[in-house]
Amino acid sequence: MASSDIHKAPKGTRDFYPPRMAIRRHIEGAWRSAGMDSGFDEIEGPMFEHLDLYTVKSGEEIISQLFSFKREGGDDLYALRPEFTPTLARMAVARGKSLPTPTKWFAIPSHFRAERPQRGRLREHVQWNVDVLGLSDGSADVEVISTALLALERLGLGPEDVKVRLSHRGSIAKVLGALGVSDDSMQPALMLLDRRDKMSEEDFRSSAAGLGLDESAVARFDQAARATLPLSGSLSDLSKTLGVSGESLEELDGIRTGLLDAGLADWCVLDTGIVRGLAYYTGTVFEIFDVKGAERAIAGGGRYDKLVELFGGQPTPACGFGMGDVVLSLVLQEHGLLGSGEGEDLLPRPEVFLVSTTEEGDRRMAPLLVALRRAGIHARRSHKSTRNPGKLLAEAGKLRARHAVILGEELAEERVILKDLEAGTQSSVALADLVELIDDDEDTVS
Amino acid sequence: MASSDIHKAPKGTRDFYPPRMAIRRHIEGAWRSAGMDSGFDEIEGPMFEHLDLYTVKSGEEIISQLFSFKREGGDDLYALRPEFTPTLARMAVARGKSLPTPTKWFAIPSHFRAERPQRGRLREHVQWNVDVLGLSDGSADVEVISTALLALERLGLGPEDVKVRLSHRGSIAKVLGALGVSDDSMQPALMLLDRRDKMSEEDFRSSAAGLGLDESAVARFDQAARATLPLSGSLSDLSKTLGVSGESLEELDGIRTGLLDAGLADWCVLDTGIVRGLAYYTGTVFEIFDVKGAERAIAGGGRYDKLVELFGGQPTPACGFGMGDVVLSLVLQEHGLLGSGEGEDLLPRPEVFLVSTTEEGDRRMAPLLVALRRAGIHARRSHKSTRNPGKLLAEAGKLRARHAVILGEELAEERVILKDLEAGTQSSVALADLVELIDDDEDTVS
Repeated sequence: MASSDIHKAPKGTRDFYPPRMAIRRHIEGAWRSAGMDSGFDEIEGPMFEHLDLYTVKSGEEIISQLFSFKREGGDDLYALRPEFTPTLARMAVARGKSLPTPTKWFAIPSHFRAERPQRGRLREHVQWNVDVLGLSDGSADVEVISTALLALERLGLGPEDVKVRLSHRGSIAKVLGALGVSDDSMQPALMLLDRRDKMSEEDFRSSAAGLGLDESAVARFDQAARATLPLSGSLSDLSKTLGVSGESLEELDGIRTGLLDAGLADWCVLDTGIVRGLAYYTGTVFEIFDVKGAERAIAGGGRYDKLVELFGGQPTPACGFGMGDVVLSLVLQEHGLLGSGEGEDLLPRPEVFLVSTTEEGDRRMAPLLVALRRAGIHARRSHKSTRNPGKLLAEAGKLRARHAVILGEELAEERVILKDLEAGTQSSVALADLVELIDDDEDTVS
Repeated sequence: MASSDIHKAPKGTRDFYPPRMAIRRHIEGAWRSAGMDSGFDEIEGPMFEHLDLYTVKSGEEIISQLFSFKREGGDDLYALRPEFTPTLARMAVARGKSLPTPTKWFAIPSHFRAERPQRGRLREHVQWNVDVLGLSDGSADVEVISTALLALERLGLGPEDVKVRLSHRGSIAKVLGALGVSDDSMQPALMLLDRRDKMSEEDFRSSAAGLGLDESAVARFDQAARATLPLSGSLSDLSKTLGVSGESLEELDGIRTGLLDAGLADWCVLDTGIVRGLAYYTGTVFEIFDVKGAERAIAGGGRYDKLVELFGGQPTPACGFGMGDVVLSLVLQEHGLLGSGEGEDLLPRPEVFLVSTTEEGDRRMAPLLVALRRAGIHARRSHKSTRNPGKLLAEAGKLRARHAVILGEELAEERVILKDLEAGTQSSVALADLVELIDDDEDTVS
């Protein structure tokens, strides 16, 4: 490897300099507060797991998509976690019957994929995972969807910007059954429905025919992949479009009613083309998209009632979703919700910036900084050697500090100059009062 | 591998169930707020780096202590990061001259070591890294030490609980030089001083003799490994003990004066036995210990003015420290600073817990939860099927909720029962006023 390579982050990973880190913390802060306000408890697991944990659910073919390794001299095979669900299931299984009902957990883990990086898909990313274990009724589905929307709303997005597109695997299986898909062909049929948008007309038709469907059934299958209905719309219109009875869509209607009751109708659209690629979903499935539709899904989730069993636990109904930071950052940027720059507007603003114009001022700076910071005040100082107050204060403006304090000749009377940089005013104040003055002022800033 | 193994976290890693996660967030919160108030900007890097990044500083022998891997079909060798300093140096070098002076960065990364886990030392841990780049004077040393102490103080520790034990490599080199250690033997002599506490008397004496020291010099070397002085003590006493002139300790005196000026004397002790194992330290070195001394160091750091150059950058003075979560958690637990349990006391308390005793109550619960959470109120609900208010409210008590709301018969008049669980009072309130009532009450809770 060329020696210059060590100066770059590995391909598909990111260096978070302060402005970009401020964006990340802004997003994580919304995730965490939405999760906590919604009554979820935060958890975390190891960054890597035994490799076997991933092949249980996804088979051996997942190995090539993982970063896997052994310890030198060790036998155990490990892999960097590509997703959080297996860790969640493992942790739930380990607790067994001592797990409360419901168990509501969220996590904000880093994930890793050994794939070629693409727009919206990197080798390392951060994902918000929200899960409810132990509830089989639709209240849990509504709970996770409303938690996802709460975070997006706190980040500035509204129902005019993003939509939850949702369906129900049970209802869709009935629709496909009515088209003539046999039980044995159901899983491949669902996968075909999932891939519909990424296939040509021709490929889709030949694949559908391969499932044993006649020409008219293929056409209706195609329609099912495109059928959408506002949550407030008439379900009988949808059942007519899909060529099934209203009862076939009972499960879809259940989740629809729950979301209507919760007052979330504006944010949601029924979309029978939503399947979610993974085989383990058993009921509600949903994805959240930017209405403009330029990016991949912002979030995806649903119900997976067999998952905990798959990892050796008791039968445990479960539902949840994952929301990654990469696509969400792109969407927020496109909607102008991350300020004007690359995150600079989100950097924490210093409450006070200290400058000194005398030697005595230099000497008094360190204890004053300690006192301010002890009071919970974000305090910075100039390290420049100039004694010119104008030059010294330029840095305070650049950092968007709210106040500046000049330690100068006034120290002979134990006083300093306090400048309010937002109001453009200044006054001489007793050094002994300074911490309290700034602290009071900070409390009044909204 | 036995199939039961997948139910365990890999050896030396941790599952963070909610109470333990609450401890982690409590610690990280103190780190972040102390870092931000002290004017440091948060950064992050990739979880793994090119393996070469670690051998640059530590040589090939570090490889066996790392988890290293390739991507299937890829050539690049990567390693999970064992520490943050190489990433920090890489990021600084990449920015070159556009880096501001000073650059003050902190990070809270996960680190990985492929060693045998021990008490206070795991295979995966979280570490707070705080660094100042670009300042060669002692103000930066004082700044990083005071930032470390600010976090410890916020976690409840005081100068009676923990001490910064500090020394200066420049002064120590002069002390060792006066004993007869040649320039060529200086690095091994420093490493011997560093290991003194872990060696037998005999091993130490023979190693010291191997450096060419006579018996009286070995005895004085031994004394240097044990000499301590309160910050407020007399430096001439220390110079006498060490058998050198006061001028030899000029650099040590500089950092001592800085800490005295900052008002941090109570927290600090000069200790010429502190060296820090790593070869790259060039000036101040310090470690923070529990006064009771039962655990490893809580933090360690110092000045490393050659580091950025080592990674191919411009000469850049630098100093900083790392503070891990494992030892710190043990120390806080021993001092009774994490509440009575395993973190339960640190779990977020629900502001309100909703129960329903009627079908209409069930139906009204979802929109009320959405409204409460939108207002930033931590709101949970019962999922039990009983209609017995006493049984329903028991869960609210267990979760330490501040309020409970009963959705019952009163809903016929659009009213609910609001219980203040701390005051033990209750009243019937209009549903329309509920969010505002709880929100106002939340604001008055300190």
